[in-house]
Amino acid sequence: MEMASHPAVHPVALPPPYQAVGPPAPPAVRINDFPGSPGTLMGLALRFAQLGFALTALCIMVSIVGFSSVTAFCFLVAAMVLQCIWSLCLGVLDCYALLTKRSLRNSLILSFFVVGDWITSTMTFAGACAAAGITVLIDNDLNQCGPNHCNRFEAAAAMAFMSWVITTISFFLSFWILVTCR
Amino acid sequence: MEMASHPAVHPVALPPPYQAVGPPAPPAVRINDFPGSPGTLMGLALRFAQLGFALTALCIMVSIVGFSSVTAFCFLVAAMVLQCIWSLCLGVLDCYALLTKRSLRNSLILSFFVVGDWITSTMTFAGACAAAGITVLIDNDLNQCGPNHCNRFEAAAAMAFMSWVITTISFFLSFWILVTCR
Repeated sequence: MEMASHPAVHPVALPPPYQAVGPPAPPAVRINDFPGSPGTLMGLALRFAQLGFALTALCIMVSIVGFSSVTAFCFLVAAMVLQCIWSLCLGVLDCYALLTKRSLRNSLILSFFVVGDWITSTMTFAGACAAAGITVLIDNDLNQCGPNHCNRFEAAAAMAFMSWVITTISFFLSFWILVTCR
Repeated sequence: MEMASHPAVHPVALPPPYQAVGPPAPPAVRINDFPGSPGTLMGLALRFAQLGFALTALCIMVSIVGFSSVTAFCFLVAAMVLQCIWSLCLGVLDCYALLTKRSLRNSLILSFFVVGDWITSTMTFAGACAAAGITVLIDNDLNQCGPNHCNRFEAAAAMAFMSWVITTISFFLSFWILVTCR
């Protein structure tokens, strides 16, 4: 009876040590680690999407001869340059955090992200709205559109709007984490 | 001895009932009750300030003959009407909460305030930016400004910007309370 009970005891006694060694108990840390927050792969993807749309808008605007005669278009170009610099810097910071496995969940760093995201997204949205308003004025209200210019202005404004949407998502995620982590 | 002990027992036995009746134990409720949040006097003041600026912008725009020939100005008027309706409704709700001493710190109500404030502030800002862009185009870039029109357009855009700033403050306060109260 003692020999027969031996194999029946082993499977019951062994599982606890395997369970304790296997997964490194993540739940307490991952509560606020939802995708898109700074220092995550999704956060990096959002930064590169912002950069891509802003860079496209900037290239379209610069390719139009005489865009600088309209103040609102100059403002859009300035906003797109600011957006590109900001998204590129934050993207590089996300890459650094991912490669060195460091956390960006410091309230001072998050406050900086929130303020920066808010300023850049507001500037981008203002530029896009002003450019869209003038494009609609030239195209629909005055019917004085050149052969290709209006399509290009519309495309640049649309790209700027896309960049604004994605920067706003980044802003809300950072703000949410900042408030919940305090 | 029984008659002499009577007055000595009374002063010790009486204080607890007086303390319990006096102040209604506020500390647990007032932590998130900072000025400007929905249902407070400061929140009501913010709503009336938004309403005042939006109504001023609307009146200035409507007073300009032929504003409807420019799509962006029509958009600004529509945004101002929306802003007026929203701020008036929320102001009335704040009045009701103050008069009946009810709390608006329900997460469903706060979510509704946050979404509504975000939509109206975005619409107001978009209208103000488009109108400002066109005003700068007519005034600075084309130098085709009528005798008084540009000043009025600029004043309307400035009022819309002020309304946007105050709606954004209301939005951030509601969002902050929504996130911290969860």
